[in-house]
Amino acid sequence: VLLVGRPEVVASAGLPCIEASEVIEMHDDPANGVRRKKDSSLVRAAEAVRDGVASAMVSAGNTGATMASALLRMGRIKGVSRPAIATVLPRPGMHPTVLLDSGANAECQAPWLVQFAQMGAVYSQHRFGLERPKVGLLSIGEEAGKGNDLVKETHDLLTTAPHVHFIGNVEGRDVLTEAVDVVVTDGFTGNVVLKTLEGALSAISSSIMQALAATAEFQANQGPLRAAHRQVYDFLDPETYGGAMLLGVEGVCIISHGSSSALALRNAIRVAADMVRGATVEGLRVAIAAE
Amino acid sequence: VLLVGRPEVVASAGLPCIEASEVIEMHDDPANGVRRKKDSSLVRAAEAVRDGVASAMVSAGNTGATMASALLRMGRIKGVSRPAIATVLPRPGMHPTVLLDSGANAECQAPWLVQFAQMGAVYSQHRFGLERPKVGLLSIGEEAGKGNDLVKETHDLLTTAPHVHFIGNVEGRDVLTEAVDVVVTDGFTGNVVLKTLEGALSAISSSIMQALAATAEFQANQGPLRAAHRQVYDFLDPETYGGAMLLGVEGVCIISHGSSSALALRNAIRVAADMVRGATVEGLRVAIAAE
Repeated sequence: VLLVGRPEVVASAGLPCIEASEVIEMHDDPANGVRRKKDSSLVRAAEAVRDGVASAMVSAGNTGATMASALLRMGRIKGVSRPAIATVLPRPGMHPTVLLDSGANAECQAPWLVQFAQMGAVYSQHRFGLERPKVGLLSIGEEAGKGNDLVKETHDLLTTAPHVHFIGNVEGRDVLTEAVDVVVTDGFTGNVVLKTLEGALSAISSSIMQALAATAEFQANQGPLRAAHRQVYDFLDPETYGGAMLLGVEGVCIISHGSSSALALRNAIRVAADMVRGATVEGLRVAIAAE
Repeated sequence: VLLVGRPEVVASAGLPCIEASEVIEMHDDPANGVRRKKDSSLVRAAEAVRDGVASAMVSAGNTGATMASALLRMGRIKGVSRPAIATVLPRPGMHPTVLLDSGANAECQAPWLVQFAQMGAVYSQHRFGLERPKVGLLSIGEEAGKGNDLVKETHDLLTTAPHVHFIGNVEGRDVLTEAVDVVVTDGFTGNVVLKTLEGALSAISSSIMQALAATAEFQANQGPLRAAHRQVYDFLDPETYGGAMLLGVEGVCIISHGSSSALALRNAIRVAADMVRGATVEGLRVAIAAE
Protein backbone atom coordinates (compact mmCIF):
# COMPACT_ATOMS: atom_id res chain seq x y z
CA VAL A 1 0.00 0.00 0.00
CA LEU A 2 1.28 3.40 -1.11
CA LEU A 3 -0.27 6.61 0.17
CA VAL A 4 -0.58 9.64 -2.11
CA GLY A 5 -1.14 13.13 -0.72
CA ARG A 6 0.23 16.05 1.23
CA PRO A 7 3.29 14.92 3.22
CA GLU A 8 1.99 16.31 6.51
CA VAL A 9 -1.10 14.13 6.16
CA VAL A 10 0.19 10.88 4.71
CA ALA A 11 3.69 10.62 6.16
CA SER A 12 2.61 9.82 9.70
CA ALA A 13 1.00 6.49 8.70
CA GLY A 14 4.36 4.79 8.33
CA LEU A 15 3.63 3.56 4.80
CA PRO A 16 5.51 4.42 1.61
CA CYS A 17 4.23 7.72 0.17
CA ILE A 18 4.00 9.62 -3.07
CA GLU A 19 3.92 13.31 -2.33
CA ALA A 20 1.28 15.54 -3.87
CA SER A 21 0.94 19.14 -2.78
CA GLU A 22 -2.64 19.79 -3.98
CA VAL A 23 -6.10 18.44 -3.19
CA ILE A 24 -9.09 18.32 -5.52
CA GLU A 25 -11.86 19.09 -3.04
CA MET A 26 -15.22 17.32 -2.98
CA HIS A 27 -16.96 20.41 -4.42
CA ASP A 28 -14.38 21.13 -7.14
CA ASP A 29 -15.41 20.74 -10.75
CA PRO A 30 -13.86 17.41 -11.81
CA ALA A 31 -12.49 18.32 -15.24
CA ASN A 32 -11.18 21.71 -14.11
CA GLY A 33 -9.71 20.19 -10.99
CA VAL A 34 -7.72 17.62 -12.93
CA ARG A 35 -6.61 20.20 -15.49
CA ARG A 36 -5.50 22.80 -12.97
CA LYS A 37 -4.30 20.79 -10.00
CA LYS A 38 -1.58 18.78 -11.69
CA ASP A 39 0.09 18.03 -8.38
CA SER A 40 -3.07 16.76 -6.69
CA SER A 41 -3.25 13.39 -4.99
CA LEU A 42 -5.80 12.08 -7.53
CA VAL A 43 -3.71 13.05 -10.55
CA ARG A 44 -0.52 11.73 -8.98
CA ALA A 45 -2.21 8.44 -8.05
CA ALA A 46 -3.45 7.92 -11.61
CA GLU A 47 0.04 8.74 -12.93
CA ALA A 48 1.55 6.22 -10.53
CA VAL A 49 -0.67 3.51 -12.08
CA ARG A 50 0.11 4.67 -15.60
CA ASP A 51 3.87 4.61 -14.85
CA GLY A 52 3.81 1.21 -13.17
CA VAL A 53 4.77 2.68 -9.78
CA ALA A 54 1.43 1.45 -8.40
CA SER A 55 -0.70 -1.47 -9.60
CA ALA A 56 -4.06 0.18 -8.88
CA MET A 57 -5.60 3.32 -7.40
CA VAL A 58 -8.28 3.57 -4.69
CA SER A 59 -10.01 6.86 -3.86
CA ALA A 60 -12.82 7.96 -1.58
CA GLY A 61 -12.54 11.52 -2.84
CA ASN A 62 -14.40 13.52 -5.51
CA THR A 63 -15.96 10.82 -7.73
CA GLY A 64 -15.97 12.87 -10.91
CA ALA A 65 -12.37 13.91 -10.42
CA THR A 66 -11.33 10.33 -9.69
CA MET A 67 -12.90 9.26 -13.00
CA ALA A 68 -11.36 12.19 -14.86
CA SER A 69 -7.89 11.54 -13.42
CA ALA A 70 -8.04 7.87 -14.32
CA LEU A 71 -9.39 8.57 -17.79
CA LEU A 72 -6.96 11.36 -18.62
CA ARG A 73 -3.82 9.86 -17.08
CA MET A 74 -4.27 6.09 -17.61
CA GLY A 75 -6.23 6.44 -20.85
CA ARG A 76 -9.12 4.45 -22.22
CA ILE A 77 -8.95 0.79 -23.22
CA LYS A 78 -8.75 0.72 -27.03
CA GLY A 79 -12.25 0.55 -28.49
CA VAL A 80 -14.08 1.59 -25.32
CA SER A 81 -16.48 4.48 -26.03
CA ARG A 82 -17.04 5.46 -22.42
CA PRO A 83 -15.82 4.02 -19.13
CA ALA A 84 -18.59 3.04 -16.70
CA ILE A 85 -18.80 2.71 -12.93
CA ALA A 86 -19.65 -0.84 -11.85
CA THR A 87 -21.15 -1.08 -8.38
CA VAL A 88 -21.80 -4.30 -6.50
CA LEU A 89 -25.14 -4.77 -4.78
CA PRO A 90 -25.18 -7.41 -2.03
CA ARG A 91 -27.89 -10.05 -2.35
CA PRO A 92 -28.82 -12.26 0.57
CA GLY A 93 -27.55 -15.82 0.12
CA MET A 94 -25.56 -15.34 -3.08
CA HIS A 95 -22.79 -13.27 -4.68
CA PRO A 96 -23.69 -9.63 -5.35
CA THR A 97 -25.29 -8.17 -8.47
CA VAL A 98 -23.12 -5.90 -10.62
CA LEU A 99 -24.89 -2.65 -11.59
CA LEU A 100 -23.43 -0.45 -14.31
CA ASP A 101 -23.27 2.35 -15.26
CA SER A 102 -23.96 3.66 -11.81
CA GLY A 103 -23.08 7.25 -12.49
CA ALA A 104 -20.27 7.97 -14.93
CA ASN A 105 -22.45 8.89 -17.92
CA ALA A 106 -25.76 10.69 -17.34
CA GLU A 107 -26.52 10.57 -21.07
CA CYS A 108 -25.79 7.35 -22.92
CA GLN A 109 -26.00 5.88 -26.41
CA ALA A 110 -27.05 2.31 -27.15
CA PRO A 111 -23.61 1.07 -28.32
CA TRP A 112 -22.08 2.30 -25.07
CA LEU A 113 -24.60 0.22 -23.11
CA VAL A 114 -23.61 -2.83 -25.13
CA GLN A 115 -20.01 -2.27 -24.03
CA PHE A 116 -21.18 -1.82 -20.43
CA ALA A 117 -22.81 -5.25 -20.73
CA GLN A 118 -19.60 -6.79 -22.05
CA MET A 119 -17.46 -5.12 -19.40
CA GLY A 120 -19.93 -5.92 -16.62
CA ALA A 121 -19.88 -9.59 -17.57
CA VAL A 122 -16.08 -9.69 -17.41
CA TYR A 123 -16.15 -7.93 -14.03
CA SER A 124 -18.68 -10.37 -12.62
CA GLN A 125 -16.56 -13.27 -13.87
CA HIS A 126 -13.37 -11.89 -12.37
CA ARG A 127 -14.78 -10.65 -9.11
CA PHE A 128 -17.23 -13.42 -8.26
CA GLY A 129 -16.01 -16.33 -10.35
CA LEU A 130 -19.21 -16.63 -12.37
CA GLU A 131 -18.59 -18.46 -15.61
CA ARG A 132 -21.56 -17.14 -17.52
CA PRO A 133 -23.16 -14.24 -15.69
CA LYS A 134 -26.74 -13.46 -16.62
CA VAL A 135 -26.80 -9.97 -18.10
CA GLY A 136 -30.09 -8.05 -18.00
CA LEU A 137 -31.07 -4.66 -19.40
CA LEU A 138 -32.92 -2.50 -16.87
CA SER A 139 -36.35 -1.52 -18.17
CA ILE A 140 -39.96 -1.10 -17.12
CA GLY A 141 -41.28 -4.37 -18.49
CA GLU A 142 -39.78 -7.70 -19.48
CA GLU A 143 -40.97 -7.65 -23.09
CA ALA A 144 -38.50 -6.45 -25.74
CA GLY A 145 -40.77 -3.56 -26.75
CA LYS A 146 -40.98 -2.08 -23.23
CA GLY A 147 -38.90 0.89 -22.15
CA ASN A 148 -37.61 4.18 -23.47
CA ASP A 149 -35.98 4.63 -26.89
CA LEU A 150 -32.49 3.99 -25.52
CA VAL A 151 -33.54 0.69 -23.97
CA LYS A 152 -35.36 -0.51 -27.09
CA GLU A 153 -32.35 0.20 -29.29
CA THR A 154 -29.95 -1.38 -26.80
CA HIS A 155 -32.14 -4.47 -26.48
CA ASP A 156 -31.86 -5.08 -30.22
CA LEU A 157 -28.08 -4.69 -30.20
CA LEU A 158 -27.61 -6.92 -27.16
CA THR A 159 -29.41 -9.89 -28.68
CA THR A 160 -26.47 -10.38 -31.05
CA ALA A 161 -23.58 -8.93 -29.03
CA PRO A 162 -20.59 -11.23 -28.43
CA HIS A 163 -19.28 -12.01 -24.93
CA VAL A 164 -22.67 -11.41 -23.28
CA HIS A 165 -25.17 -13.95 -22.00
CA PHE A 166 -28.09 -11.57 -22.49
CA ILE A 167 -31.28 -12.65 -20.71
CA GLY A 168 -33.42 -9.70 -21.85
CA ASN A 169 -35.01 -6.87 -19.94
CA VAL A 170 -35.16 -6.92 -16.15
CA GLU A 171 -37.06 -4.64 -13.79
CA GLY A 172 -36.18 -2.77 -10.62
CA ARG A 173 -37.63 -5.54 -8.49
CA ASP A 174 -35.23 -8.10 -10.02
CA VAL A 175 -32.04 -6.28 -9.11
CA LEU A 176 -31.57 -7.96 -5.71
CA THR A 177 -32.80 -11.39 -6.78
CA GLU A 178 -31.17 -14.39 -8.44
CA ALA A 179 -32.84 -13.44 -11.75
CA VAL A 180 -29.85 -11.45 -12.93
CA ASP A 181 -26.11 -11.10 -12.23
CA VAL A 182 -25.24 -7.97 -14.22
CA VAL A 183 -27.73 -5.11 -14.60
CA VAL A 184 -27.00 -2.73 -17.47
CA THR A 185 -28.41 0.80 -17.57
CA ASP A 186 -27.46 4.40 -18.30
CA GLY A 187 -25.56 6.31 -15.62
CA PHE A 188 -28.54 8.44 -14.66
CA THR A 189 -30.90 5.54 -14.00
CA GLY A 190 -28.14 3.46 -12.41
CA ASN A 191 -27.25 6.21 -9.98
CA VAL A 192 -30.90 6.71 -9.08
CA VAL A 193 -31.27 2.95 -8.43
CA LEU A 194 -28.16 2.86 -6.27
CA LYS A 195 -29.24 5.79 -4.13
CA THR A 196 -32.83 4.57 -3.93
CA LEU A 197 -31.54 1.28 -2.53
CA GLU A 198 -29.41 3.15 0.01
CA GLY A 199 -32.45 5.15 1.10
CA ALA A 200 -34.66 2.08 1.23
CA LEU A 201 -32.19 0.16 3.37
CA SER A 202 -32.08 2.97 5.84
CA ALA A 203 -35.86 3.60 5.96
CA ILE A 204 -36.90 -0.05 6.01
CA SER A 205 -34.43 -1.26 8.57
CA SER A 206 -35.11 1.60 10.96
CA SER A 207 -38.88 1.02 10.63
CA ILE A 208 -38.52 -2.67 11.39
CA MET A 209 -36.30 -1.98 14.38
CA GLN A 210 -38.77 0.58 15.72
CA ALA A 211 -41.69 -1.82 15.41
CA LEU A 212 -39.77 -4.64 17.05
CA ALA A 213 -38.63 -2.32 19.83
CA ALA A 214 -42.26 -1.71 20.73
CA THR A 215 -42.68 -5.38 21.68
CA ALA A 216 -41.91 -6.62 25.18
CA GLU A 217 -40.08 -9.61 23.72
CA PHE A 218 -37.67 -7.37 21.88
CA GLN A 219 -37.01 -5.18 24.87
CA ALA A 220 -36.15 -8.23 26.96
CA ASN A 221 -33.61 -9.42 24.37
CA GLN A 222 -32.40 -6.23 22.80
CA GLY A 223 -28.71 -7.02 22.64
CA PRO A 224 -28.73 -10.16 20.50
CA LEU A 225 -31.62 -8.98 18.33
CA ARG A 226 -29.94 -5.65 17.60
CA ALA A 227 -26.71 -7.47 16.83
CA ALA A 228 -28.50 -9.73 14.34
CA HIS A 229 -30.05 -6.70 12.70
CA ARG A 230 -26.74 -4.86 12.58
CA GLN A 231 -25.19 -7.84 10.85
CA VAL A 232 -27.80 -7.72 8.08
CA TYR A 233 -27.56 -3.98 7.78
CA ASP A 234 -23.80 -4.19 7.33
CA PHE A 235 -24.18 -7.05 4.88
CA LEU A 236 -26.64 -5.13 2.72
CA ASP A 237 -24.94 -1.77 3.01
CA PRO A 238 -23.10 -1.17 -0.28
CA GLU A 239 -20.46 0.75 1.66
CA THR A 240 -19.26 -2.44 3.25
CA TYR A 241 -18.15 -3.61 -0.17
CA GLY A 242 -15.62 -0.89 -0.38
CA GLY A 243 -16.17 0.68 -3.70
CA ALA A 244 -17.03 0.50 -7.32
CA MET A 245 -14.64 -0.18 -10.18
CA LEU A 246 -14.26 2.19 -13.11
CA LEU A 247 -14.36 -0.18 -16.09
CA GLY A 248 -12.86 0.83 -19.41
CA VAL A 249 -9.67 2.63 -18.36
CA GLU A 250 -6.15 1.24 -18.73
CA GLY A 251 -5.69 0.32 -15.10
CA VAL A 252 -7.54 -0.62 -11.95
CA CYS A 253 -9.37 2.34 -10.40
CA ILE A 254 -11.64 1.76 -7.40
CA ILE A 255 -14.03 4.54 -6.38
CA SER A 256 -15.19 4.48 -2.77
CA HIS A 257 -17.98 6.41 -1.08
CA GLY A 258 -16.94 9.71 0.49
CA SER A 259 -18.11 8.50 3.87
CA SER A 260 -16.28 5.16 3.69
CA SER A 261 -15.37 3.45 6.94
CA ALA A 262 -11.93 1.98 7.56
CA LEU A 263 -13.43 -1.45 6.80
CA ALA A 264 -14.84 -0.22 3.50
CA LEU A 265 -11.45 1.16 2.47
CA ARG A 266 -9.69 -2.04 3.49
CA ASN A 267 -12.17 -3.95 1.33
CA ALA A 268 -11.63 -1.52 -1.54
CA ILE A 269 -7.87 -2.14 -1.38
CA ARG A 270 -8.47 -5.89 -1.30
CA VAL A 271 -10.73 -5.68 -4.37
CA ALA A 272 -8.13 -3.57 -6.18
CA ALA A 273 -5.49 -6.20 -5.44
CA ASP A 274 -7.80 -9.03 -6.61
CA MET A 275 -8.56 -7.22 -9.86
CA VAL A 276 -4.85 -6.71 -10.52
CA ARG A 277 -3.95 -10.34 -9.73
CA GLY A 278 -6.85 -11.61 -11.86
CA ALA A 279 -5.81 -9.42 -14.83
CA THR A 280 -9.29 -7.95 -15.11
CA VAL A 281 -8.16 -5.08 -17.31
CA GLU A 282 -6.73 -7.62 -19.77
CA GLY A 283 -10.09 -9.44 -19.68
CA LEU A 284 -11.88 -6.20 -20.51
CA ARG A 285 -9.50 -5.55 -23.41
CA VAL A 286 -10.26 -8.97 -24.88
CA ALA A 287 -14.04 -8.56 -24.54
CA ILE A 288 -14.03 -5.13 -26.18
CA ALA A 289 -11.61 -6.16 -28.95
CA ALA A 290 -13.93 -9.04 -29.94
CA GLU A 291 -16.68 -6.73 -31.12
CA VAL B 1 -69.91 0.92 -5.61
CA LEU B 2 -70.79 -0.15 -9.14
CA LEU B 3 -69.21 -3.23 -10.70
CA VAL B 4 -68.38 -3.29 -14.41
CA GLY B 5 -67.82 -6.56 -16.27
CA ARG B 6 -69.24 -9.77 -17.60
CA PRO B 7 -72.60 -10.46 -15.95
CA GLU B 8 -71.69 -13.99 -14.89
CA VAL B 9 -68.70 -12.60 -12.96
CA VAL B 10 -70.01 -9.39 -11.43
CA ALA B 11 -73.70 -10.12 -10.83
CA SER B 12 -73.17 -12.51 -7.94
CA ALA B 13 -71.67 -9.81 -5.69
CA GLY B 14 -75.04 -8.24 -5.03
CA LEU B 15 -73.90 -4.75 -6.05
CA PRO B 16 -75.27 -2.61 -8.91
CA CYS B 17 -73.60 -3.59 -12.19
CA ILE B 18 -72.78 -2.20 -15.60
CA GLU B 19 -72.58 -5.04 -18.06
CA ALA B 20 -69.60 -5.37 -20.39
CA SER B 21 -69.14 -8.45 -22.52
CA GLU B 22 -65.42 -8.15 -23.27
CA VAL B 23 -62.20 -8.19 -21.26
CA ILE B 24 -58.91 -6.49 -22.15
CA GLU B 25 -56.48 -9.11 -20.89
CA MET B 26 -53.27 -8.31 -19.00
CA HIS B 27 -51.14 -9.19 -22.04
CA ASP B 28 -53.28 -7.30 -24.61
CA ASP B 29 -51.79 -4.27 -26.32
CA PRO B 30 -53.39 -1.30 -24.53
CA ALA B 31 -54.22 0.96 -27.49
CA ASN B 32 -55.44 -1.91 -29.67
CA GLY B 33 -57.44 -3.35 -26.82
CA VAL B 34 -59.30 -0.11 -26.23
CA ARG B 35 -59.89 0.43 -29.93
CA ARG B 36 -61.15 -3.06 -30.64
CA LYS B 37 -62.88 -4.12 -27.44
CA LYS B 38 -65.46 -1.37 -27.23
CA ASP B 39 -67.63 -3.40 -24.87
CA SER B 40 -64.81 -4.19 -22.46
CA SER B 41 -65.10 -3.49 -18.74
CA LEU B 42 -62.32 -0.87 -18.88
CA VAL B 43 -63.89 1.08 -21.73
CA ARG B 44 -67.35 0.87 -20.17
CA ALA B 45 -66.04 2.01 -16.80
CA ALA B 46 -64.35 5.06 -18.34
CA GLU B 47 -67.56 5.86 -20.25
CA ALA B 48 -69.55 5.59 -17.04
CA VAL B 49 -67.32 8.29 -15.52
CA ARG B 50 -67.55 10.44 -18.65
CA ASP B 51 -71.35 10.14 -18.66
CA GLY B 52 -71.77 10.87 -14.97
CA VAL B 53 -73.07 7.38 -14.23
CA ALA B 54 -70.06 6.81 -11.99
CA SER B 55 -67.97 9.37 -10.10
CA ALA B 56 -64.65 7.57 -10.52
CA MET B 57 -63.11 4.38 -11.89
CA VAL B 58 -60.82 1.91 -10.11
CA SER B 59 -59.03 -0.88 -11.98
CA ALA B 60 -56.48 -3.56 -11.10
CA GLY B 61 -56.35 -4.71 -14.72
CA ASN B 62 -54.00 -3.95 -17.62
CA THR B 63 -52.33 -0.66 -16.59
CA GLY B 64 -51.74 0.61 -20.10
CA ALA B 65 -55.32 -0.16 -21.14
CA THR B 66 -56.67 1.52 -18.02
CA MET B 67 -54.75 4.68 -18.93
CA ALA B 68 -55.80 4.47 -22.57
CA SER B 69 -59.48 3.97 -21.68
CA ALA B 70 -59.44 6.91 -19.29
CA LEU B 71 -57.58 9.13 -21.72
CA LEU B 72 -59.69 8.28 -24.77
CA ARG B 73 -63.10 8.19 -23.08
CA MET B 74 -62.83 10.86 -20.37
CA GLY B 75 -60.44 13.07 -22.31
CA ARG B 76 -57.51 15.16 -21.17
CA ILE B 77 -57.80 18.19 -18.89
CA LYS B 78 -57.46 21.24 -21.14
CA GLY B 79 -53.79 22.26 -21.37
CA VAL B 80 -52.36 18.99 -20.08
CA SER B 81 -49.69 17.63 -22.43
CA ARG B 82 -49.57 14.13 -20.98
CA PRO B 83 -51.34 12.50 -18.04
CA ALA B 84 -49.02 10.98 -15.44
CA ILE B 85 -49.35 8.19 -12.90
CA ALA B 86 -48.91 9.44 -9.33
CA THR B 87 -47.91 6.73 -6.86
CA VAL B 88 -47.76 7.18 -3.10
CA LEU B 89 -44.75 5.85 -1.23
CA PRO B 90 -45.27 5.29 2.49
CA ARG B 91 -42.73 6.96 4.77
CA PRO B 92 -42.36 5.91 8.38
CA GLY B 93 -43.79 8.50 10.74
CA MET B 94 -45.30 10.89 8.21
CA HIS B 95 -47.64 11.10 5.23
CA PRO B 96 -46.42 9.36 2.06
CA THR B 97 -44.31 10.83 -0.72
CA VAL B 98 -45.99 11.30 -4.11
CA LEU B 99 -43.88 9.96 -7.01
CA LEU B 100 -44.79 10.87 -10.58
CA ASP B 101 -44.63 9.93 -13.38
CA SER B 102 -44.34 6.35 -12.26
CA GLY B 103 -44.87 4.76 -15.62
CA ALA B 104 -47.27 6.46 -18.05
CA ASN B 105 -44.61 8.11 -20.25
CA ALA B 106 -41.32 6.32 -20.85
CA GLU B 107 -40.06 9.28 -22.89
CA CYS B 108 -40.73 12.76 -21.55
CA GLN B 109 -40.14 16.40 -22.44
CA ALA B 110 -39.25 19.08 -19.90
CA PRO B 111 -42.57 21.01 -20.11
CA TRP B 112 -44.45 17.79 -19.32
CA LEU B 113 -42.38 17.34 -16.19
CA VAL B 114 -43.29 20.87 -15.13
CA GLN B 115 -46.96 19.90 -15.41
CA PHE B 116 -46.26 16.71 -13.46
CA ALA B 117 -44.84 18.92 -10.71
CA GLN B 118 -47.95 21.12 -10.71
CA MET B 119 -50.32 18.17 -10.73
CA GLY B 120 -48.33 16.28 -8.11
CA ALA B 121 -48.48 19.26 -5.78
CA VAL B 122 -52.28 19.45 -6.14
CA TYR B 123 -52.55 15.72 -5.50
CA SER B 124 -50.41 15.90 -2.37
CA GLN B 125 -52.52 18.82 -1.12
CA HIS B 126 -55.79 17.00 -1.76
CA ARG B 127 -54.77 13.60 -0.60
CA PHE B 128 -52.66 14.41 2.43
CA GLY B 129 -53.77 17.92 3.31
CA LEU B 130 -50.35 19.49 2.79
CA GLU B 131 -50.63 23.21 2.21
CA ARG B 132 -47.35 23.71 0.46
CA PRO B 133 -45.83 20.37 -0.53
CA LYS B 134 -42.11 20.39 -1.20
CA VAL B 135 -41.60 19.44 -4.84
CA GLY B 136 -38.23 17.96 -5.84
CA LEU B 137 -36.83 16.93 -9.22
CA LEU B 138 -35.21 13.49 -9.15
CA SER B 139 -31.59 13.68 -10.23
CA ILE B 140 -28.14 12.33 -9.44
CA GLY B 141 -26.88 15.32 -7.48
CA GLU B 142 -28.42 18.24 -5.66
CA GLU B 143 -26.74 20.97 -7.68
CA ALA B 144 -28.73 22.52 -10.54
CA GLY B 145 -26.16 21.40 -13.11
CA LYS B 146 -26.34 17.72 -12.16
CA GLY B 147 -28.35 15.17 -14.15
CA ASN B 148 -29.18 14.31 -17.72
CA ASP B 149 -30.30 16.84 -20.34
CA LEU B 150 -33.99 16.41 -19.51
CA VAL B 151 -33.38 17.11 -15.83
CA LYS B 152 -31.22 20.17 -16.48
CA GLU B 153 -33.85 21.70 -18.78
CA THR B 154 -36.67 20.86 -16.38
CA HIS B 155 -34.77 22.32 -13.45
CA ASP B 156 -34.56 25.67 -15.23
CA LEU B 157 -38.27 25.68 -16.05
CA LEU B 158 -39.32 24.66 -12.54
CA THR B 159 -37.52 27.54 -10.86
CA THR B 160 -40.14 29.93 -12.29
CA ALA B 161 -43.18 27.64 -12.62
CA PRO B 162 -46.39 28.80 -10.87
CA HIS B 163 -48.21 26.59 -8.35
CA VAL B 164 -45.06 24.70 -7.37
CA HIS B 165 -42.94 25.05 -4.25
CA PHE B 166 -39.82 23.78 -6.00
CA ILE B 167 -37.00 22.82 -3.65
CA GLY B 168 -34.52 21.77 -6.37
CA ASN B 169 -33.01 18.42 -7.25
CA VAL B 170 -33.40 15.45 -4.93
CA GLU B 171 -31.68 12.07 -5.04
CA GLY B 172 -32.89 8.51 -4.77
CA ARG B 173 -31.93 8.39 -1.11
CA ASP B 174 -34.26 11.33 -0.32
CA VAL B 175 -37.42 9.70 -1.66
CA LEU B 176 -38.45 8.07 1.63
CA THR B 177 -37.34 10.94 3.87
CA GLU B 178 -38.92 14.18 5.02
CA ALA B 179 -36.75 16.10 2.55
CA VAL B 180 -39.40 16.03 -0.16
CA ASP B 181 -43.17 15.52 -0.55
CA VAL B 182 -43.54 15.25 -4.32
CA VAL B 183 -40.83 13.65 -6.47
CA VAL B 184 -40.98 14.50 -10.17
CA THR B 185 -39.34 12.34 -12.81
CA ASP B 186 -39.93 10.80 -16.22
CA GLY B 187 -42.06 7.64 -16.41
CA PHE B 188 -39.09 5.38 -17.10
CA THR B 189 -37.06 6.45 -14.09
CA GLY B 190 -40.15 6.66 -11.88
CA ASN B 191 -41.18 3.13 -12.71
CA VAL B 192 -37.67 1.86 -12.06
CA VAL B 193 -37.65 3.61 -8.66
CA LEU B 194 -41.02 2.16 -7.73
CA LYS B 195 -40.05 -1.39 -8.61
CA THR B 196 -36.62 -1.04 -7.03
CA LEU B 197 -38.32 -0.06 -3.78
CA GLU B 198 -40.63 -3.07 -4.04
CA GLY B 199 -37.65 -5.36 -4.55
CA ALA B 200 -35.70 -3.72 -1.73
CA LEU B 201 -38.56 -4.09 0.72
CA SER B 202 -38.80 -7.76 -0.04
CA ALA B 203 -35.04 -8.48 0.05
CA ILE B 204 -34.26 -6.39 3.11
CA SER B 205 -37.14 -7.53 5.25
CA SER B 206 -36.57 -11.20 4.50
CA SER B 207 -32.85 -10.81 5.30
CA ILE B 208 -33.59 -9.17 8.61
CA MET B 209 -36.11 -11.85 9.52
CA GLN B 210 -33.63 -14.58 8.62
CA ALA B 211 -30.88 -13.06 10.72
CA LEU B 212 -33.17 -12.58 13.70
CA ALA B 213 -34.46 -16.13 13.35
CA ALA B 214 -30.92 -17.39 13.88
CA THR B 215 -30.88 -16.04 17.46
CA ALA B 216 -32.26 -18.07 20.36
CA GLU B 217 -34.02 -14.97 21.68
CA PHE B 218 -35.96 -14.56 18.47
CA GLN B 219 -36.93 -18.19 18.33
CA ALA B 220 -38.34 -18.01 21.83
CA ASN B 221 -40.51 -15.03 20.93
CA GLN B 222 -41.20 -15.59 17.27
CA GLY B 223 -44.90 -14.81 17.27
CA PRO B 224 -44.90 -11.23 18.54
CA LEU B 225 -41.68 -10.34 16.72
CA ARG B 226 -43.00 -11.65 13.43
CA ALA B 227 -46.23 -9.76 13.99
CA ALA B 228 -44.33 -6.50 14.54
CA HIS B 229 -42.37 -7.13 11.38
CA ARG B 230 -45.49 -7.95 9.41
CA GLN B 231 -47.03 -4.69 10.54
CA VAL B 232 -44.08 -2.70 9.15
CA TYR B 233 -44.01 -4.72 5.98
CA ASP B 234 -47.67 -4.00 5.36
CA PHE B 235 -47.16 -0.35 6.22
CA LEU B 236 -44.31 0.04 3.74
CA ASP B 237 -45.79 -2.12 1.01
CA PRO B 238 -47.13 0.27 -1.66
CA GLU B 239 -49.87 -2.25 -2.41
CA THR B 240 -51.49 -1.50 0.90
CA TYR B 241 -52.20 1.97 -0.37
CA GLY B 242 -54.50 0.68 -3.01
CA GLY B 243 -53.37 2.31 -6.14
CA ALA B 244 -52.04 5.22 -8.04
CA MET B 245 -54.03 8.07 -9.54
CA LEU B 246 -53.85 8.97 -13.21
CA LEU B 247 -53.47 12.75 -13.11
CA GLY B 248 -54.46 14.88 -16.11
CA VAL B 249 -57.63 13.18 -17.34
CA GLU B 250 -61.15 14.57 -16.93
CA GLY B 251 -62.17 12.30 -14.10
CA VAL B 252 -60.84 10.24 -11.23
CA CYS B 253 -59.05 7.07 -12.38
CA ILE B 254 -57.26 4.90 -9.84
CA ILE B 255 -54.85 2.25 -11.09
CA SER B 256 -54.21 -0.66 -8.74
CA HIS B 257 -51.58 -3.36 -8.85
CA GLY B 258 -52.61 -6.53 -10.68
CA SER B 259 -51.97 -8.55 -7.53
CA SER B 260 -53.99 -6.24 -5.26
CA SER B 261 -55.45 -7.71 -2.10
CA ALA B 262 -59.03 -7.06 -1.04
CA LEU B 263 -57.69 -4.49 1.43
CA ALA B 264 -55.74 -2.73 -1.32
CA LEU B 265 -58.86 -2.51 -3.49
CA ARG B 266 -60.95 -1.25 -0.60
CA ASN B 267 -58.33 1.45 -0.03
CA ALA B 268 -58.31 2.27 -3.73
CA ILE B 269 -62.07 2.81 -3.67
CA ARG B 270 -61.75 4.98 -0.58
CA VAL B 271 -59.07 7.10 -2.26
CA ALA B 272 -61.25 7.44 -5.36
CA ALA B 273 -64.15 8.65 -3.21
CA ASP B 274 -61.90 11.12 -1.36
CA MET B 275 -60.57 12.53 -4.62
CA VAL B 276 -64.11 13.01 -5.92
CA ARG B 277 -65.34 14.66 -2.71
CA GLY B 278 -62.27 16.90 -2.59
CA ALA B 279 -62.74 17.98 -6.23
CA THR B 280 -59.17 17.07 -7.07
CA VAL B 281 -59.79 17.15 -10.82
CA GLU B 282 -61.01 20.74 -10.49
CA GLY B 283 -57.85 21.54 -8.52
CA LEU B 284 -55.74 20.08 -11.33
CA ARG B 285 -57.64 22.16 -13.90
CA VAL B 286 -56.91 25.35 -11.98
CA ALA B 287 -53.20 24.56 -11.58
CA ILE B 288 -52.75 23.77 -15.26
CA ALA B 289 -54.81 26.75 -16.44
CA ALA B 290 -52.59 29.11 -14.43
CA GLU B 291 -49.57 28.46 -16.60
